[in-house]
Amino acid sequence: MKIDGVHTRSVWKNEDGSVGIIDQRLLPHELRRVSLADVDAAAEAISSMQTRGAPLIGAVAAYGLALALFEEPTEARLEEAYDKLLRTRPTAVNLKWALDRVKASLQGLCGEGWGRAAWAEADAIADEDAAACAAIGEAGLPLIRARFEAKGGEEPVQILTHCNAGWLATVDWGTALAPIYKAHDAGVAVHVWVDETRPRNQGAALTAWELSQHGVPHTVIPDNAGGHLMQHGMVDLCIVGTDRTTRRGDAANKIGTYLKALAAMDNGVPFYVALPKSTLDLSIEDGLKQIRIEQRLAREVTHIQGLAEDGSLQTVQLTPKGSPAANFGFDVTPARLITGFICEDGVKRPDALA
Amino acid sequence: MKIDGVHTRSVWKNEDGSVGIIDQRLLPHELRRVSLADVDAAAEAISSMQTRGAPLIGAVAAYGLALALFEEPTEARLEEAYDKLLRTRPTAVNLKWALDRVKASLQGLCGEGWGRAAWAEADAIADEDAAACAAIGEAGLPLIRARFEAKGGEEPVQILTHCNAGWLATVDWGTALAPIYKAHDAGVAVHVWVDETRPRNQGAALTAWELSQHGVPHTVIPDNAGGHLMQHGMVDLCIVGTDRTTRRGDAANKIGTYLKALAAMDNGVPFYVALPKSTLDLSIEDGLKQIRIEQRLAREVTHIQGLAEDGSLQTVQLTPKGSPAANFGFDVTPARLITGFICEDGVKRPDALA
Repeated sequence: MKIDGVHTRSVWKNEDGSVGIIDQRLLPHELRRVSLADVDAAAEAISSMQTRGAPLIGAVAAYGLALALFEEPTEARLEEAYDKLLRTRPTAVNLKWALDRVKASLQGLCGEGWGRAAWAEADAIADEDAAACAAIGEAGLPLIRARFEAKGGEEPVQILTHCNAGWLATVDWGTALAPIYKAHDAGVAVHVWVDETRPRNQGAALTAWELSQHGVPHTVIPDNAGGHLMQHGMVDLCIVGTDRTTRRGDAANKIGTYLKALAAMDNGVPFYVALPKSTLDLSIEDGLKQIRIEQRLAREVTHIQGLAEDGSLQTVQLTPKGSPAANFGFDVTPARLITGFICEDGVKRPDALA
Repeated sequence: MKIDGVHTRSVWKNEDGSVGIIDQRLLPHELRRVSLADVDAAAEAISSMQTRGAPLIGAVAAYGLALALFEEPTEARLEEAYDKLLRTRPTAVNLKWALDRVKASLQGLCGEGWGRAAWAEADAIADEDAAACAAIGEAGLPLIRARFEAKGGEEPVQILTHCNAGWLATVDWGTALAPIYKAHDAGVAVHVWVDETRPRNQGAALTAWELSQHGVPHTVIPDNAGGHLMQHGMVDLCIVGTDRTTRRGDAANKIGTYLKALAAMDNGVPFYVALPKSTLDLSIEDGLKQIRIEQRLAREVTHIQGLAEDGSLQTVQLTPKGSPAANFGFDVTPARLITGFICEDGVKRPDALA
């Protein structure tokens, strides 16, 4: 999508053979593009969370492996680079999937061809992700357009989203934000209520920045506000992403998603989950019982980073020194609260997912 | 309640005739006691939000009027001081009520007696508020004790609260926190999940500090977490405060309260509202339609204050420069989601309030 009017992906190839990414830790306060010249830099970018979001991590890891093999197309180098990249974020399923795919693309080739083959496979991974997200966007667009027309074709469709399931988390378009970008680009007026998404504030920092750069009207709200907005008819629909969805349609997503789904149900607001096929886990049924929820560092709750008056990035403590904090990364929204899943190949009801 | 083991109220008289308060804007990072020597200082303390919470504002305003009349017991001074104090927070109902009460206490007295009478009335207002909160605590204690015993008498009762309805918002005890303090003091084990309560973070800053000073076990959580905790049986009951409750039991409270009430209902967790009689508004029925929700400054969402590494208080920006933010102060929890109201004279069902 666009930065300052120019189309940009979240990962790209530079002319000097390095791989480019945006240092997402500095957003929304500073836009810094970073060049990854070798596999070490790629691994560091993933583990330090300069780059994040499951699909994007997969693509960056694939490019990282290609960088290593371009430098030294040997079995030893392959194993070393594969292990290094895999260790960066041990729970990211996409990471292993992308690395395995690059590795498989080398089969039957002699060493000389490895570098080029790995690059081509990394490109394919990135392109396919962008295409999948664009398809999710096309699938979701009619939902927004229908609402726009039902409202008379002038007033913007009010959409609430939680966390960042935008192009910064994928290669392009995003998942939950893809239908919103498609609508905006098609001249369907939208306005997005952006949950700030404590504790890591991906909404306030990343979603707001993305939307603002692409020119999509939006307003940042505390996570506490969505219920009130829905009670007062100020939300037409909700669209969120998902990290993992079960066979019956229970969707794990960023902590707080479940609260918004409850409010949507209580107020008759449609609640959609954008579901890239890769996040559907047919091996489990009951999301509440079967999905283990990651606990993250308390420091993400007790401290926060922002832009100080002197223009520097500062971290400040929010809580009393002696008070512990808990930080659950995700919650599970039961299928009964979900109106539909926006997939690459159309919108499906929870019971039609499997 | 206790600070560092010593019983303290949120407003008190100093031996030199001034009035003492805590500068709540610096909590939880610094405990600074402030002396208010005259009515100007009292008015400034209220308007700058050094002191906050409806009951506490009323008491501080009453003392402020007493300070003025002690200095100069004239009709002109009375009117001037009354107006000055009333203007500090135009929407605070308690403020006018307390000022009127002090004014009425002067009736029939000659000027000489005004100072002493005003002091006595301010004392009475403070003492009555502390007694009312203690009574709410006693009324709520059996709910917590019953749960404690039902759990076998060893495991702590897990209580979730939102915002700060503690002693820092009243003169002593608080409203929602009063039953928790009573339980803790009575040896009933409790653990409090403290919603941080964005955007002003009264939970993370004030509730956590209060509980920590009094020695009550607690954990700060992002506002997004409560639903997940309730889904997993980690909350036994919720207790929140209220700013205004209608005849049928719709309760306006800090933004985000409604989302927790929805989660409580969805998971069979009892949801209680601590209701000081002064916040019951029998003149209205439908809270959603009839209570106007205050919109506050966007800056409270886009910026936050915390403790920097060098020990100074710093304000940092969280959002992109171009992104607007909305800041609704309260939401309304419909009576149907409320298990009971904890009042000075016992626990009442919503339909038994009026």
